[in-house]
Amino acid sequence: MIQKLIENIKKTNAPIVVGLDPMLSYIPEQITKAAFAEYGETLEGAAEAVWQYNKKIVDAVWDLIPAVKPQIAMYEQFGIPGLEAFQKTVHYCHEKGLVVIGDVKRGDIGSTSAAYATAHLGRIQIGSQWLTPFGEDFATVNPYLGTDGIRPFLDVCREEKKGIFVLVKTSNPSSGEFQDRLVADAPADAIGGTSAGTDFTQIGQRREAGAKPLYELVGEKVAEWADSCMGETYSYVGAVVGATYPEMGKTLRRVMPKSFILVPGYGAQGGKAADLAPFFNEDGLGAIVNSSRGIIAAYRQEKYASYGAEHFAEASRQAVTDMIEDINGALGRR
Amino acid sequence: MIQKLIENIKKTNAPIVVGLDPMLSYIPEQITKAAFAEYGETLEGAAEAVWQYNKKIVDAVWDLIPAVKPQIAMYEQFGIPGLEAFQKTVHYCHEKGLVVIGDVKRGDIGSTSAAYATAHLGRIQIGSQWLTPFGEDFATVNPYLGTDGIRPFLDVCREEKKGIFVLVKTSNPSSGEFQDRLVADAPADAIGGTSAGTDFTQIGQRREAGAKPLYELVGEKVAEWADSCMGETYSYVGAVVGATYPEMGKTLRRVMPKSFILVPGYGAQGGKAADLAPFFNEDGLGAIVNSSRGIIAAYRQEKYASYGAEHFAEASRQAVTDMIEDINGALGRR
Repeated sequence: MIQKLIENIKKTNAPIVVGLDPMLSYIPEQITKAAFAEYGETLEGAAEAVWQYNKKIVDAVWDLIPAVKPQIAMYEQFGIPGLEAFQKTVHYCHEKGLVVIGDVKRGDIGSTSAAYATAHLGRIQIGSQWLTPFGEDFATVNPYLGTDGIRPFLDVCREEKKGIFVLVKTSNPSSGEFQDRLVADAPADAIGGTSAGTDFTQIGQRREAGAKPLYELVGEKVAEWADSCMGETYSYVGAVVGATYPEMGKTLRRVMPKSFILVPGYGAQGGKAADLAPFFNEDGLGAIVNSSRGIIAAYRQEKYASYGAEHFAEASRQAVTDMIEDINGALGRR
Repeated sequence: MIQKLIENIKKTNAPIVVGLDPMLSYIPEQITKAAFAEYGETLEGAAEAVWQYNKKIVDAVWDLIPAVKPQIAMYEQFGIPGLEAFQKTVHYCHEKGLVVIGDVKRGDIGSTSAAYATAHLGRIQIGSQWLTPFGEDFATVNPYLGTDGIRPFLDVCREEKKGIFVLVKTSNPSSGEFQDRLVADAPADAIGGTSAGTDFTQIGQRREAGAKPLYELVGEKVAEWADSCMGETYSYVGAVVGATYPEMGKTLRRVMPKSFILVPGYGAQGGKAADLAPFFNEDGLGAIVNSSRGIIAAYRQEKYASYGAEHFAEASRQAVTDMIEDINGALGRR
């Protein structure tokens, strides 16, 4: 699937992904009214509105982009009907030839991560049948539980030729709270203690041995996992690094040479095109930049207000065109 | 809801939670056969088997226990029908007066965490209606993204009187890979660098200021979050600390005095009752110990084999009785 992603990026000359993260407040009244008229003010009604909204946006932009990234939380908040809208969206985007990155940020201990990997990237055997639960192409994964929470995803990626993006440095303001902490190069117990009583001068002594910020340590692990799951030129194992932290992106690009970096935070969260160059490799590949609100709710921005709510999907198309031009311009690819 | 959990624990004198983590391989053939006969070898058939299996176990043990902890991954792997079985299970356990801990390990940036908090603990406004998506009482949450990924859960906890258990030190073998790393007491940039070029002797100098393992730093954050969300005696904000790490449990018990600790890893994962004392406070409260496989698949253990697959639920009831005796014995509460 990493090959398909690369092909789609080359075909569109657009290293971007559109985040399908629908909020009810984004959806034009004509769509919610029709959905509520049919299903009432219910979870079903909201889910129908979400699905119709997604469908019109995908119809308007699919030929310009390589991939979409539905954020499952935005569907989960509408319960079962919301998740049905998520699944319909995944299937519809596949019909359009798009790569689907399920932004699910799952992660648990081994046996449980295996169930999540099956749910989102794999197939499950029921009696004599092999069935596909959600069937995304990539999933985002949280690394906090360590390698044995990641390994089951790697197994499914190899088997199904799917991929993951591991959270390394997230785009939010407080991501540094834990991710930026300087860490020793070995677990505490290995350097003589697990409590405040530890002699921390040992960390200093181990500087040469590679003490570093946590995100860099996680990045090194991603590089190991990536080596064990290679496609032709890039690995099935990618990473999430926020556009809001370009300096760290530069470091992490070096640490994870074979991993695609999924870059959230462009646009609405403040990431600028000029900051994106460090996330890419010299082959012009290696990163894919996400925009959600900036595209799907473009018609609500002053810049695209002239389209009006009736033509929201055309506003989204224009916003995609502008995003591609902005990014390729900054990368000197125009 | 923390009050309800405490009342239920006192009423049952059982500081335990039963993990409803169904695997198809656990479910006796008479149940899967009937489910497949009705729905075929489909996701619906598997989900029906899961639901019938859960229902019989809950019917057999509900009066002995304060709470259940369905692991959503085990339902998500059966797609939409699986999540319908999850929801049915949540509702059924509520009918039985049980506290339901949704083991969902969600966590994302602010706006997205808000959607997850709504999905699992809150209500969502659709038109003039306020509707409940999944409606668990507690949810497990991943801290990797920092405070602004947690805050939306705190807001919903205050509003709905619900609770969360934040992952601090997980029970799996590789949890130490990141969680046990010694960290500086301030983010890297605050002490002069974010790359391998940083002067790590500064960490040594800051020892007094509190450098420590990552899990302890996360525990301190949990204590802060907990203070901002207090019930009568305990906070709405708890933590997950594995039974497999009793020494760390002792430290974390001290660091998070007002937080209930959800303790996985007892039984099947190797945690022993004798190791559990450090997780409890002197009031005999403050921890709740989970067992999943050990209870729901008890009939497959040699110890309970005499019950046979037909009487699997009675085997589960006996396993619950034995677990309560084992734990209360080790805590000197018998």
